[in-house]
Amino acid sequence: MTRKETGERTGGGRGSGQGPNEDSGRDKVKPLELREAEVVLLDQTKLPTRVEYVRALCVEDVARAIETMVVRGAPAIGIAAAYGLALHAAVSRAQGPEEFLKDFDAAAKRLARTRPTAVNLFWAIERMKRTAREAVREAVGARAATPGGRPWLEVVRDRLRAEALEIAGADERGNRRLGRYGQALLPRRCRVLTHCNAGALATGGYGTALGIIRAAVEAGKEVSVLVDETRPLWQGARLTAWELMEEGIPATLITDSMAGWFMARGEVDAVIFGADRIAANGDVANKIGSYSLAVLADAHGIPCYSAAPLSTVDLETKSGEDIVIEERPAEEVARPYGLEIAPPGMAVANPAFDVTPARLITAIVTDAGVARPPYEKSLAALFGRS
Amino acid sequence: MTRKETGERTGGGRGSGQGPNEDSGRDKVKPLELREAEVVLLDQTKLPTRVEYVRALCVEDVARAIETMVVRGAPAIGIAAAYGLALHAAVSRAQGPEEFLKDFDAAAKRLARTRPTAVNLFWAIERMKRTAREAVREAVGARAATPGGRPWLEVVRDRLRAEALEIAGADERGNRRLGRYGQALLPRRCRVLTHCNAGALATGGYGTALGIIRAAVEAGKEVSVLVDETRPLWQGARLTAWELMEEGIPATLITDSMAGWFMARGEVDAVIFGADRIAANGDVANKIGSYSLAVLADAHGIPCYSAAPLSTVDLETKSGEDIVIEERPAEEVARPYGLEIAPPGMAVANPAFDVTPARLITAIVTDAGVARPPYEKSLAALFGRS
Repeated sequence: MTRKETGERTGGGRGSGQGPNEDSGRDKVKPLELREAEVVLLDQTKLPTRVEYVRALCVEDVARAIETMVVRGAPAIGIAAAYGLALHAAVSRAQGPEEFLKDFDAAAKRLARTRPTAVNLFWAIERMKRTAREAVREAVGARAATPGGRPWLEVVRDRLRAEALEIAGADERGNRRLGRYGQALLPRRCRVLTHCNAGALATGGYGTALGIIRAAVEAGKEVSVLVDETRPLWQGARLTAWELMEEGIPATLITDSMAGWFMARGEVDAVIFGADRIAANGDVANKIGSYSLAVLADAHGIPCYSAAPLSTVDLETKSGEDIVIEERPAEEVARPYGLEIAPPGMAVANPAFDVTPARLITAIVTDAGVARPPYEKSLAALFGRS
Repeated sequence: MTRKETGERTGGGRGSGQGPNEDSGRDKVKPLELREAEVVLLDQTKLPTRVEYVRALCVEDVARAIETMVVRGAPAIGIAAAYGLALHAAVSRAQGPEEFLKDFDAAAKRLARTRPTAVNLFWAIERMKRTAREAVREAVGARAATPGGRPWLEVVRDRLRAEALEIAGADERGNRRLGRYGQALLPRRCRVLTHCNAGALATGGYGTALGIIRAAVEAGKEVSVLVDETRPLWQGARLTAWELMEEGIPATLITDSMAGWFMARGEVDAVIFGADRIAANGDVANKIGSYSLAVLADAHGIPCYSAAPLSTVDLETKSGEDIVIEERPAEEVARPYGLEIAPPGMAVANPAFDVTPARLITAIVTDAGVARPPYEKSLAALFGRS
C-alpha cells in the first residue's frame, strides 16, 4: 500500500515543506529517503507543477514506483532498489534466517523485473543480496557464540539499512568527485546542451551530467544550459529545468528537434548526458535521443561527454549490441498526460533508450576519473583504480 | 468575425460531414475552400480528435487563421492568402477603382504580416495584387468602351476569384506531377521517414512529401512511413498520422528524438520533408528539426529529399542566410495545449524553422521536375522549363 503527501508548488519555492526536504540546503534536491519503516519518494511524474511525495510501505510499492517512474534515473533506481530491500528487511516477519533469505531473494527478484536497461539496478540488488547473506551468517554465528546478544533479525536489518544508506551516500560523494573531474573539461565560458535528467533527481544527490554543470558553476565558470525537453516523458522540461531554476543556473528549454539547429548556429560548446548502462567498449545506453545528439555533435565538431558513476559501467556487457532496450507503452507518445495528439489506433514505437557507439563519445566522466578512447583499456583501468 | 462549425471525430471516419468535404472522395482531404462570401478552413489545430471548420468572413479572419495555424503549410498558406484576397474583393463596398485598389493593398499588407518564412505567401499575394491591377484596368477600360457592360467591381471580383481558384487548382495538379517525379526516386520496397506535415492538409490537396508517398503507393510500391511527431505543434502526430490513416498507408509514429536511432538500426531508406522556402543555392528552410534529420541522414548514407512546388523556390533569396526564421510563442513549447510541462518562468526558445544547407539535400523534387546539385543551375533550369 502506498500513501501520498501533497504540496502544491508555489512560485519559485521548493514546495510546501511537507516532504522530507524541508530543512535541507539549496543543493539538497533529493529524490528519495529511507525512513524507519517506509521509503519516501519525490513523485517525479508530478513535477514541476506539483511537489508530491509517495510513501512506499513495502517492496511492492517501491517496485511500482520504479515501474511508473515516480523515481527514475539509473543511479536513483539503484538506490531505490537498495532502500526497497532495506525496507523489506525492516518490515520482515520471517521466523528464521532461511525464511528471511528466501523472502529477501523473492523481493530482489520482484525489483529486478521493474526495468531492464539500468545496470545500477542489478548492481545494487546484488550488493544488497550479498550483504544480506553475510549479515545473516555473521548474526547467526554471533548469536550462537553469545546467547545474550541482540536478535539476529535486528542485526541483519541494521546492516542492510547501513548498506543501502552507504550506496546512496557513496553515490552523492561520487557525483561530487565526478563533477570536479568533469568541470575541468569545460572552458571558462561554456554553453552546455543536455538531454533528459541526469541531475540530483536521477541520483543520490548532486547529479552526474548536472553535477558537472554544478561543479563548473561552483568553480566560478560562466555556464549556461540548453535543456532538451526530452520526449516522450519530458524529463528535461519537467526535471532538469526545475533543478536548474532551483539552482539559479541560466537555462533555456528547447524541443529535442532544435538541438542540431543550435549547434549549427554555433551556440553549443559541449553536449553532456548521463548513461543508463555503459558497455566495456564504451558504448553508452542512455535516454532515447542521446544517439542523435552524439551524431549531431560529431558533425559539428562539438565534444560529447557521457557522465555516470562507475557502477553504470558493466564490464560483463561487451558492447552496446548486448544491451536490452526497454520498449515502453505507446500512450507515452500518443497520449502524453491524457492529451490526444495522435489519431486513435495509430501505431507507435517507443524505445526508451538508444545506444551511442563509443566512437561518438569524446570522454566518459566517472566518479573514479575520466576515461578516453580506447575505452576497453581506460574503463578497465578505472576499475583497477577504484 | 469568425463562425465555427463543429463535428466530433468518430472512430476511423472523416468526421460528421458538416464541413465542406462531405461529398469528396478518399484523396480529397482539403484544408480550405473558397465559397461565395466566406473562406471555410478545416481547423488543423483541432485535429485529430475533432474535425472543426472555421468560417472566415473577412480578410482579418483569414489573417488570424494563418497566424494561429488553423491553416498551415507553405502552399496552403499561399492559397489561404489568395482566397482571403478574393474574399476581400467579394465583400468589398469600394465606391471606385482607386478606393478598391487602396483597400486591396491594405488587405494584402495585413496578410503579408502573418508569417514571415513561407515564400508562397508573398508569391500568392503578389500574384493577386497583379491580377487586381490588371482586372481593374481592363474592367474600367471595358466599361468606358461599352457603357452597357457589367459593373467593373463584379468583373474584378470574378477575375480575382478565378485567379485564387487557379492558384489552388494549379497547386494540386502540380503536387500530382511532383508526386510522380518523386516516387520514381524510391525503391519498390521503401521505408520513408517524414517530418511535420507536407500532405494534402499543407497544400491545395494531395501534398508534396506525402504526395510522393501517395504516388509511390498508387504506382504499386510497398511503402511504410515513420512519422516524426514534430514538436512543438505535433503536425506529424496530429496531421500526417491522420492523413496516412485516412489513406490506409502503413505508418508508425515516433518522437523526433527517435529518428536517428531508427536510421542506425537500418530502418529508414529515405527521408522526405517539405519546404517553406528554398533559396537559389538549394538551401531549404523547413519546420524546425528538418536540419537535424538531414545531418542524421547524411551520417547514415540515407538520401534526403525536399519536396515543394516551384513557387516555394525563391531565386531572390540567394542562400539560407537570407531567410527570416520566425520565433513563435514560448507557450507552444512550455505549455502545449495548456499542459504545464515546464516550471513557471522557464526561459524557452522556439524557432519555428531551420535551414538545411544544400549539400545535405540529395534532390529537390518540384512540380517542374527533380533538381540535383549544383542547385544554382538545376533550380534556375526548372524555372526556365516551367
